[in-house]
Amino acid sequence: MKTAPGSFFEDFRLGQTLVHATPRTLTSGDAVLYTALYGSRFALQSADTFARQLGLPRSPLDDLLVFHAVFGKSVPDISLNAIANLGYAEGRFLKPVYPGATLTAQSEVIGLKENSNRETGVVTVRTKGLDETGTCVLSYVRWVMVRKRTIDAQTAELHVPALAAAVAANDLSVPADADFSDFDTTASGSDFLWDDFVPGEKIDHQDGVTVEEADHMMATRLYQNSARVHFNQYTEEKGRFGRRLIYGGHVISLARAISFNGLSNAVSILAINGGRHVNPLFAGDTVFAWSEVVDKAEIAGRADCAALRLRLVATKNLPCDAFPDKDASGHYPANLILDFDYWAVMPRR
Amino acid sequence: MKTAPGSFFEDFRLGQTLVHATPRTLTSGDAVLYTALYGSRFALQSADTFARQLGLPRSPLDDLLVFHAVFGKSVPDISLNAIANLGYAEGRFLKPVYPGATLTAQSEVIGLKENSNRETGVVTVRTKGLDETGTCVLSYVRWVMVRKRTIDAQTAELHVPALAAAVAANDLSVPADADFSDFDTTASGSDFLWDDFVPGEKIDHQDGVTVEEADHMMATRLYQNSARVHFNQYTEEKGRFGRRLIYGGHVISLARAISFNGLSNAVSILAINGGRHVNPLFAGDTVFAWSEVVDKAEIAGRADCAALRLRLVATKNLPCDAFPDKDASGHYPANLILDFDYWAVMPRR
Amino acid sequence: MKTAPGSFFEDFRLGQTLVHATPRTLTSGDAVLYTALYGSRFALQSADTFARQLGLPRSPLDDLLVFHAVFGKSVPDISLNAIANLGYAEGRFLKPVYPGATLTAQSEVIGLKENSNRETGVVTVRTKGLDETGTCVLSYVRWVMVRKRTIDAQTAELHVPALAAAVAANDLSVPADADFSDFDTTASGSDFLWDDFVPGEKIDHQDGVTVEEADHMMATRLYQNSARVHFNQYTEEKGRFGRRLIYGGHVISLARAISFNGLSNAVSILAINGGRHVNPLFAGDTVFAWSEVVDKAEIAGRADCAALRLRLVATKNLPCDAFPDKDASGHYPANLILDFDYWAVMPRR
Repeated sequence: MKTAPGSFFEDFRLGQTLVHATPRTLTSGDAVLYTALYGSRFALQSADTFARQLGLPRSPLDDLLVFHAVFGKSVPDISLNAIANLGYAEGRFLKPVYPGATLTAQSEVIGLKENSNRETGVVTVRTKGLDETGTCVLSYVRWVMVRKRTIDAQTAELHVPALAAAVAANDLSVPADADFSDFDTTASGSDFLWDDFVPGEKIDHQDGVTVEEADHMMATRLYQNSARVHFNQYTEEKGRFGRRLIYGGHVISLARAISFNGLSNAVSILAINGGRHVNPLFAGDTVFAWSEVVDKAEIAGRADCAALRLRLVATKNLPCDAFPDKDASGHYPANLILDFDYWAVMPRR
Repeated sequence: MKTAPGSFFEDFRLGQTLVHATPRTLTSGDAVLYTALYGSRFALQSADTFARQLGLPRSPLDDLLVFHAVFGKSVPDISLNAIANLGYAEGRFLKPVYPGATLTAQSEVIGLKENSNRETGVVTVRTKGLDETGTCVLSYVRWVMVRKRTIDAQTAELHVPALAAAVAANDLSVPADADFSDFDTTASGSDFLWDDFVPGEKIDHQDGVTVEEADHMMATRLYQNSARVHFNQYTEEKGRFGRRLIYGGHVISLARAISFNGLSNAVSILAINGGRHVNPLFAGDTVFAWSEVVDKAEIAGRADCAALRLRLVATKNLPCDAFPDKDASGHYPANLILDFDYWAVMPRR
Repeated sequence: MKTAPGSFFEDFRLGQTLVHATPRTLTSGDAVLYTALYGSRFALQSADTFARQLGLPRSPLDDLLVFHAVFGKSVPDISLNAIANLGYAEGRFLKPVYPGATLTAQSEVIGLKENSNRETGVVTVRTKGLDETGTCVLSYVRWVMVRKRTIDAQTAELHVPALAAAVAANDLSVPADADFSDFDTTASGSDFLWDDFVPGEKIDHQDGVTVEEADHMMATRLYQNSARVHFNQYTEEKGRFGRRLIYGGHVISLARAISFNGLSNAVSILAINGGRHVNPLFAGDTVFAWSEVVDKAEIAGRADCAALRLRLVATKNLPCDAFPDKDASGHYPANLILDFDYWAVMPRR
């Protein structure tokens, strides 16, 4: 058969490395379309002049655009037959990616666990995005629930990898050529710097954005993410939800853009500690978001900037002025869609 | 509070200058997306070869794209709590903007007038767009109706600025390096030049374009315009209109692109004399447009081109073959949405 | 009248050449938006590094993007008053088009035939796309049914051109600087090369993509295609279908992108042998596709690659696992929308 059927649970082997297809050169056009899809306003990614004031050659591409491009490449090999994208961990952004870079991706299988129903199993992979020089620009772990081809298939291996609860602060790095000493807070849109944030502080980002089918499909295609559940209404209307499911990464980007109002100076994502899509999002829903400051950390050798650990929570059709959250038993209400834990860099006073 | 609440009427001071956040580097990707959003076909902005035939280094960005980018920056400081964008005047495009330019914006408060209900007031600002060299590329006045935070707030100042009914013809300028002598009317799409237009002449542009939610939100995000009323169906369905309101500038760009059929050689906008959004536009509506030649003027020192003063009227769900207009008392029918008065440059015979 | 009314059947003359308006510089932004509209994953057009491995200077623009840009220019002169776009033939892609190229277009009228109802006629044109050096990059024939302005108009000329059933294999050419010897099948996404395909073989491409109004209008505007039937719901709801008709070229691009799964190594289109839009597509429909290998041919002087003649069939709301097709009498069922016959280049072992 000439078409690629995608891998089923029993096809994966522990330690196996999958080199994903379709290298992609990202350009300033990707940056523009990303802006149009999310309305992001972080100054570093918006203006070459602002980036140069910080010592960088020009505006880097949005960290999440890089994430989505790498993620998209992994879909045909990892998650074409996935039922759910369960979570992320140990994500690190290792090098800024500028327009003109060509990204490739590969994944190593680091965990396999069959579910008790024997119909599905959980596959954990560490995916790396490499630029055209072979340098790793992004590394992250994700785990997905994948169908088995046949219920009786033997799946001898079993391994649940130990994953860090968070990326350690002393593993965070900021580009050596970046200097935040003369950070322009008028241009960036906020006077609040790292020193002004307090662990436990919660921020309601206020803005709500309604999602359309055309938006999320265009975004997902931009990332060359071919997961069928996002595109095919004919099939999905007979499926679990009766509708096209929106790519989880689209939600992360929406929430991150919404978080500009309150976190304007959290200009780059340094690491993804964890992330879960706790409920599905559909076209017509309106996304809101709030953030919690989880932790603060200095970055080795840097007096000009430091790291803020943030929890970004997104909802659908529910404003966030009351900071809606999971309950004491860890159960998420139906209007919560994303619980995302990351480290961002922010200038210091 | 870390989030920016936006300014209320009583926060503005006469003479105050607001330097807006989020500088933005515009690239060829912006030009492409602008084309996809409006279908604009003016040859000067479409083809570098055409621009070079006129002596320019390459195609400039569409004037209205520049306008929207500058306007978008002013929203968080000026109109986040606006009820209505009432009008424009004294708009001047002072320098072509090419891909690669970085725009910033600032506004001076030049007028303040509380409304008699004491709940709102009219704020008038002169907004300037500057490129990365600090040169002003665009200047315009707009006035908006803004909510008061508290009805009892004192608003001592009162000033209604005197605004010109139109930009004077001898204030119009065309780039010194542009020469329209060898203008290619086959490439531009029309043989009608400045000499062929007569004041009082009306042109029905015929084409109708239906707007979708995804279109206008993508455009408005491209301009980093964060006014909430355009994006949040959850909130708006409880609001005045029950729906998301389309950014007025989107209507101007739609009407301008539609006007290509009839005004193909009006290749650049030199000035905005005035403009009013006289009724709201919503997704699902179909926009039509017609133009009236209001005036003609020579441009000092130029024998190759001259200026045409045009009134661009847009409607919704109403073809323009009968040139629908305000009535004798100045009242606009419900299907009229835009009354826009501008100077364009056109080659002469 | 200042607006262009478009040509009616009796306006065309055999042998007449129409030079179309609106030259267009295509950039990397066009490539990005094309990716976002269709999700295309062919490695040659996706990554500059991949193109350079084959000896090319960078990724060329997608062949169909070039086709649509050229087609769009011809609309105001050829098909503004068309009822139907009936077919294509003798299409040849003669030179790769890279970002930065400026395309112009012209058409020669090579066939005219009035229909027996005297209300319409069939106009056949050979359209050429030229780059900024005047080199022809694309040539194709299309025929359209065009309204007459007046039923009594005399239309003396009658000529039905003889068109080739397919572009001859020895008329196919591959860029001299391209060398497929070291083609990377991991990057391209499939191990199946030219040697592995057999005439008569059918491939179900599996994926289905639902189309939205915003998608197809944005695509059609990107191509500056101004045919009214695609944009104006106000008028169309009173028309033949009650809805906006989707540009046929949008269907070709959708089907081609879907065909990646099964034909990943068919990296470029060399020729269009024929194509027919056999039923209309509307927003909300889901497009599926299957391909048939019609023929195989070596390319003169090339041991590294060869040509595959493919028939690409697209359906709406009908999966293609049963390869739905026209019946024995040549009648197409209502769910079939496209029957497209082309030559693609593919690397050899």
